[in-house]
Amino acid sequence: MNEQVALTPRVARLRADRVTLAHGGGGKAMRDLIEDVFVSTFQPDGMEDQARLQSALLAEPGAQLAFTTDSFVVQPIEFPGGDIGRIAVCGTVNDLAVGGARPLWLSAAFIIEEGCEVALLRRVVASMRAAADEAGVRIVTGDTKVVERGAADRLFVTTAGVGVIPPGRMLSAERVQPGDVAIVNGVLGDHGATILAARGDMALETDIASDCRPLGDLMEAVIAAAPGVRCARDATRGGLASALNEIAQASAVGIEIEEATLPLRAEVKGVCELLGLDPLYLANEGPWCCSFPKAKRGRRLPRCAPHRLDGRRRSSAARSNRAMPAWSCAAISGQPNRRHAGRRTTSAHLLKEKRPCSSPDRARISRRNGACART
Amino acid sequence: MNEQVALTPRVARLRADRVTLAHGGGGKAMRDLIEDVFVSTFQPDGMEDQARLQSALLAEPGAQLAFTTDSFVVQPIEFPGGDIGRIAVCGTVNDLAVGGARPLWLSAAFIIEEGCEVALLRRVVASMRAAADEAGVRIVTGDTKVVERGAADRLFVTTAGVGVIPPGRMLSAERVQPGDVAIVNGVLGDHGATILAARGDMALETDIASDCRPLGDLMEAVIAAAPGVRCARDATRGGLASALNEIAQASAVGIEIEEATLPLRAEVKGVCELLGLDPLYLANEGPWCCSFPKAKRGRRLPRCAPHRLDGRRRSSAARSNRAMPAWSCAAISGQPNRRHAGRRTTSAHLLKEKRPCSSPDRARISRRNGACART
Repeated sequence: MNEQVALTPRVARLRADRVTLAHGGGGKAMRDLIEDVFVSTFQPDGMEDQARLQSALLAEPGAQLAFTTDSFVVQPIEFPGGDIGRIAVCGTVNDLAVGGARPLWLSAAFIIEEGCEVALLRRVVASMRAAADEAGVRIVTGDTKVVERGAADRLFVTTAGVGVIPPGRMLSAERVQPGDVAIVNGVLGDHGATILAARGDMALETDIASDCRPLGDLMEAVIAAAPGVRCARDATRGGLASALNEIAQASAVGIEIEEATLPLRAEVKGVCELLGLDPLYLANEGPWCCSFPKAKRGRRLPRCAPHRLDGRRRSSAARSNRAMPAWSCAAISGQPNRRHAGRRTTSAHLLKEKRPCSSPDRARISRRNGACART
Repeated sequence: MNEQVALTPRVARLRADRVTLAHGGGGKAMRDLIEDVFVSTFQPDGMEDQARLQSALLAEPGAQLAFTTDSFVVQPIEFPGGDIGRIAVCGTVNDLAVGGARPLWLSAAFIIEEGCEVALLRRVVASMRAAADEAGVRIVTGDTKVVERGAADRLFVTTAGVGVIPPGRMLSAERVQPGDVAIVNGVLGDHGATILAARGDMALETDIASDCRPLGDLMEAVIAAAPGVRCARDATRGGLASALNEIAQASAVGIEIEEATLPLRAEVKGVCELLGLDPLYLANEGPWCCSFPKAKRGRRLPRCAPHRLDGRRRSSAARSNRAMPAWSCAAISGQPNRRHAGRRTTSAHLLKEKRPCSSPDRARISRRNGACART
């Protein structure tokens, strides 16, 4: 921003209660919306459409730029433990983090349905800023589009993220080897069960809250504690089952996990039993799994546990479950599945009952429950 | 991609004609959609969720990373001269280019309405690949989400772009000075008039086509020909009027343009007269304006003209208008508007009739015409 014509913060310049098509038209109404709701909160560095950025990390020889994107369409937009804005920041930050990148900058693009409440937008944007501060990243550029009533579902947010992978760091699902061990961070299914309950159309009453949070610092702590880590995946859409299947496919290594060791709250188990869902397929926003060479795991990893607990939002539900293991360890048992090797269809298996844990079929799950949750 | 387990291209693995909720569920159906439609066309480098990239340009001391994003919600999705995919690539490439960056990499996130035709998706994705090749950029990472029928309007695309601004290059609207001259590239309003006509609800028959195209090479040619260029803006949403107003506000310099010199096709003028629209407010995807110190303009700029004509799609409408000036020159007349200086409300004025050319009020324009075009 130029000093001579510095833009003084203009609070509450936007008088409308709801977004109209004029707010997407490229004119004064749009600039008022952008400056009052977005620029005043995100405080980007300049007045240009593009962000202009520098980082010494990027200039390091051998460093790689990491780049990722996700659209967020969660319904409801606000739910216990978070909202679409918090997920949009954490989701993209975590996609960078589990690939070994240090997240630096985010873009945020909003598709707004005509009639969307300005107050809701303000809350979502404030939540994004708070999540970005928590994650140590900056939201540096953005866009808004307004579509007619009925052409969107109130609000969709798409974030893209840029980070830096330090020289020499290489996390990849393809590197997983037979005999590795895998760990799962956090408790599973909290986010998915929260969204199902928050939709309100299943008459569920629980005090579960989404555990949506940025994982960059935790990931750095894990890499520092266990430099041999081969890969990490966040267990978002499709749950832990999908994450493990992706690893199995990329590495052509069969995965077996011990179901009894998986960390699940009693409330989440209850929701799943009631709805006939498998918690392994429930979406998560906090937990991820990673894999290590066996010899290097046990010795150093527990150091990370206090970090996780510190970072965690202590809802009453969380407090009542503090006895949950910080890390649950599951063996990646290893032998490449000969029948499928090379065809990338190797599946994760659950050790307890040896049932195949294939990629989820959402339509099947949804139809069974008469509802479909966008998580 | 790891050599040992290279993913062989699987063509037509996806058998569905239309996208279902299962294609957004995180499981096998989603992977089939992504691999068959997106990965097979964009051919990203690896199997990870994030792209990992290196560029010698980024490592140059003093180079800046440019980062921008835009959501695209154009209706209809396909129109003469382009489609949502072509705009999504060109729009983000051009946002980088007019800021002086060399566009390198794009992300692409798709929000798909349940029931959207897979064939349409394939056409849009192929069009994105073609536009990316034309622009010399790569689409390196992406995301898909599927929402229920009625929760979106078939297809929304959000792209983010990363580019590099070479050391020492500084284009900014704030640098515009009294006495500068501005030029406008291309003919105005083709894209906006095309979309209005293509919506079909106004019974317009024209052979205008969108001039949507990547401008990176042209921008580099302009900077090479006229190193003194101070700023450039693409005249997209809100048209040339909005672009000039943004420059006027950022620089606190009043702008007067000579309306008679603005390049407009007879067809576009006709559509505007019929609908009571002002062509200055029509959206563009090709044209942009830029400003230069006066002494440096006249001498060297015409060199760029052949470049523009080469890059242009030669539709029959374009051929019939080849007498159009490649560059139209309009003076930025200059005196800071004292009444408004510092309040950033300085407006562009049209020289011909001295009518104020303020930021557009889309609702007013739309209501007058009983329709609203998302461009």
